[in-house]
Amino acid sequence: MLKKTLKKVKEVCPLIHNITNYVTVNDCANILLACGASPIMADDIAEVEEITSICGGLTINIGTLNERTIESMILAGRKSNLLNHSVVLDPVGVGASKFRTNTVEKLLKEIQFTAIHGNVSELKALAIGSSSTTGVDANINDKITQSNIQEVVQLAKNFSKESQAIIIVTGAIDIVCDANQAYIIKNGHPMMSKVSGTGCMLSTMITAYLTANPDDKLLASATAVILMGLAGELAFNRLSEYEGNLTYRDLIIDEIYNMDGNILEQKAKYKIC
Amino acid sequence: MLKKTLKKVKEVCPLIHNITNYVTVNDCANILLACGASPIMADDIAEVEEITSICGGLTINIGTLNERTIESMILAGRKSNLLNHSVVLDPVGVGASKFRTNTVEKLLKEIQFTAIHGNVSELKALAIGSSSTTGVDANINDKITQSNIQEVVQLAKNFSKESQAIIIVTGAIDIVCDANQAYIIKNGHPMMSKVSGTGCMLSTMITAYLTANPDDKLLASATAVILMGLAGELAFNRLSEYEGNLTYRDLIIDEIYNMDGNILEQKAKYKIC
Amino acid sequence: MLKKTLKKVKEVCPLIHNITNYVTVNDCANILLACGASPIMADDIAEVEEITSICGGLTINIGTLNERTIESMILAGRKSNLLNHSVVLDPVGVGASKFRTNTVEKLLKEIQFTAIHGNVSELKALAIGSSSTTGVDANINDKITQSNIQEVVQLAKNFSKESQAIIIVTGAIDIVCDANQAYIIKNGHPMMSKVSGTGCMLSTMITAYLTANPDDKLLASATAVILMGLAGELAFNRLSEYEGNLTYRDLIIDEIYNMDGNILEQKAKYKIC
Repeated sequence: MLKKTLKKVKEVCPLIHNITNYVTVNDCANILLACGASPIMADDIAEVEEITSICGGLTINIGTLNERTIESMILAGRKSNLLNHSVVLDPVGVGASKFRTNTVEKLLKEIQFTAIHGNVSELKALAIGSSSTTGVDANINDKITQSNIQEVVQLAKNFSKESQAIIIVTGAIDIVCDANQAYIIKNGHPMMSKVSGTGCMLSTMITAYLTANPDDKLLASATAVILMGLAGELAFNRLSEYEGNLTYRDLIIDEIYNMDGNILEQKAKYKIC
Repeated sequence: MLKKTLKKVKEVCPLIHNITNYVTVNDCANILLACGASPIMADDIAEVEEITSICGGLTINIGTLNERTIESMILAGRKSNLLNHSVVLDPVGVGASKFRTNTVEKLLKEIQFTAIHGNVSELKALAIGSSSTTGVDANINDKITQSNIQEVVQLAKNFSKESQAIIIVTGAIDIVCDANQAYIIKNGHPMMSKVSGTGCMLSTMITAYLTANPDDKLLASATAVILMGLAGELAFNRLSEYEGNLTYRDLIIDEIYNMDGNILEQKAKYKIC
Repeated sequence: MLKKTLKKVKEVCPLIHNITNYVTVNDCANILLACGASPIMADDIAEVEEITSICGGLTINIGTLNERTIESMILAGRKSNLLNHSVVLDPVGVGASKFRTNTVEKLLKEIQFTAIHGNVSELKALAIGSSSTTGVDANINDKITQSNIQEVVQLAKNFSKESQAIIIVTGAIDIVCDANQAYIIKNGHPMMSKVSGTGCMLSTMITAYLTANPDDKLLASATAVILMGLAGELAFNRLSEYEGNLTYRDLIIDEIYNMDGNILEQKAKYKIC
């Protein structure tokens, strides 16, 4: 199943529109190419509707949110909804400022997202208005562990029901769920948190997977998450002792580029609950 | 000849002003350094004329075009024209939105470009108002092949006559021409299309080559195109089987950094027609 | 001492707020992660005060200065001053345009910087209003050598007294000083000038070091400078003959990631005067 989902992205070559931050945008472009999709970045209000119309999916990432592009996000999101495109939200740092929190509220009101991807702190900020977000990384007290995993899954399922979107929560353990069912995924490597933008890259790869696999959105999202985590594992194994986080970034994207569907099936670590 | 053109860039160390997109800007800066030039990025209307005045050439790239910088492009372009600097346009995605198309029309009216570099879809959008552009990559139906190459060359020559600029069209086969003469270049590797920004990087490297070699602009542009293609070939040969598109990006820039003029002469694959 | 300073950054994991340019921002994020800190980039006037409040330090870099973010810089800087956070200024290209020069004057008036980091041309533009800046790199006539080093140190000390900030001047030889004392540092490698953003990366790493080591700010700044220079040396030694400036960039950040405190002590080349 994972194998077929991965293959589909390479066959369809979905063109993904990104309204995203200027920090990790280049890696987002290259990871889309790596997985078989194509990127286009466009954020001016004068063209976002037209650009999103020629694409198959849209990623909205608020990493370096600014007034100029909020309206662009809304216009592109609404247009994508009209065209039945997949739209993914990465609410980077929501809860860290009123500006981010209010903007995400507005986006959630104006746009029907297909999926929403964040860390636990961001999920909490969205789902229960918690303000534990202390930046773009999850608050250390929000770590997903064996002991709180069921609680986080329930929170995610509830928020999925409320938002009508697939919820993806990434951390030491990853959760991909709709209102009824959750993938609990254990692929990944702790060093991924030392690479800027692994979350952003995953978000736009989820858009590509959803766009190419619209018939099983939960599986599509879960496959992208497993793929990213496995790439992190395999890339770590290739890292020599004197290499560090920047080479690691390159190798993660390289692994996505070379990923074999059979390896993905074999090394996937998940259960459904 | 190619060797001398390459050497000249390293001797002159031209400072190149870039008003470009935020996706591939870092790679553009580093490829300029790799080839012996220096980058400066500045896009605020309050300083572009002054900045371009201390530079030798200007690259205008509309990859993430926005209202704020159009006027900056025009001011910098006009100033560069007054100073007789080389000015290169990369009309990324022209034809994909009215905003891009209208802006490029405006830029062509206000600025005399030394060279214009795009893919076939972008050339068609510019030269005949075709709207086959489906993003930032060439439409698959616009692929340059042995059977349509003469037709594309003629189109490029006509557009060169009209725009009074050297026209560079890149794809599986590359064309560099003025109204009378064309270099048909076959260096390059298909995997280059899996790296975000190879087109942008080439555009600003063309600016550097034109700036350092103002006496033979066609040769200068062709040398930059051959150099980029050859770097793609050599980098591909160095790629191990588990490396992918991000390592490939690094190796391409590395090859530019290390390029030997004799190797460039020997491995160049082009004819003039 | 250097060892302890380096260790402290990894223990404290300071969250650093960056208002910076879009050229080298990704490398700045990754070098912060490499040295044990965390990055957040946020530049909208609506959130900069809140964001800087959850951080430990702030880096202001004017590399791609634009009207939209000047007020954000001032608001974030003032808030940081109120909270007694470390604030570092990288006045990229000051002297190259009136816009940059006037903005830096304004920033210096409105914000008390903890440290200011630039090249010699930028220092001269700030300290004596010289206009030798010819871009983002130091003017070649401004090279620090054995024969002019005392003169530059005196200039830096005077400017430190005037600005009440630690002054860091980097080039072939680096200077880190307050009004009374200067570290003269000889770590580094000439090839670092072929990597876009080594200066920007160092600036934000200085912020991280200051934030984690507030009790000896001069030592903290000097340690960051030595670390960057040593990383450049060690990375150069790992470079194979066919690798160039982009692999070098990756290896420099990798070396920061892996730096051992004992090696840093052993290989540091500095004297205090």
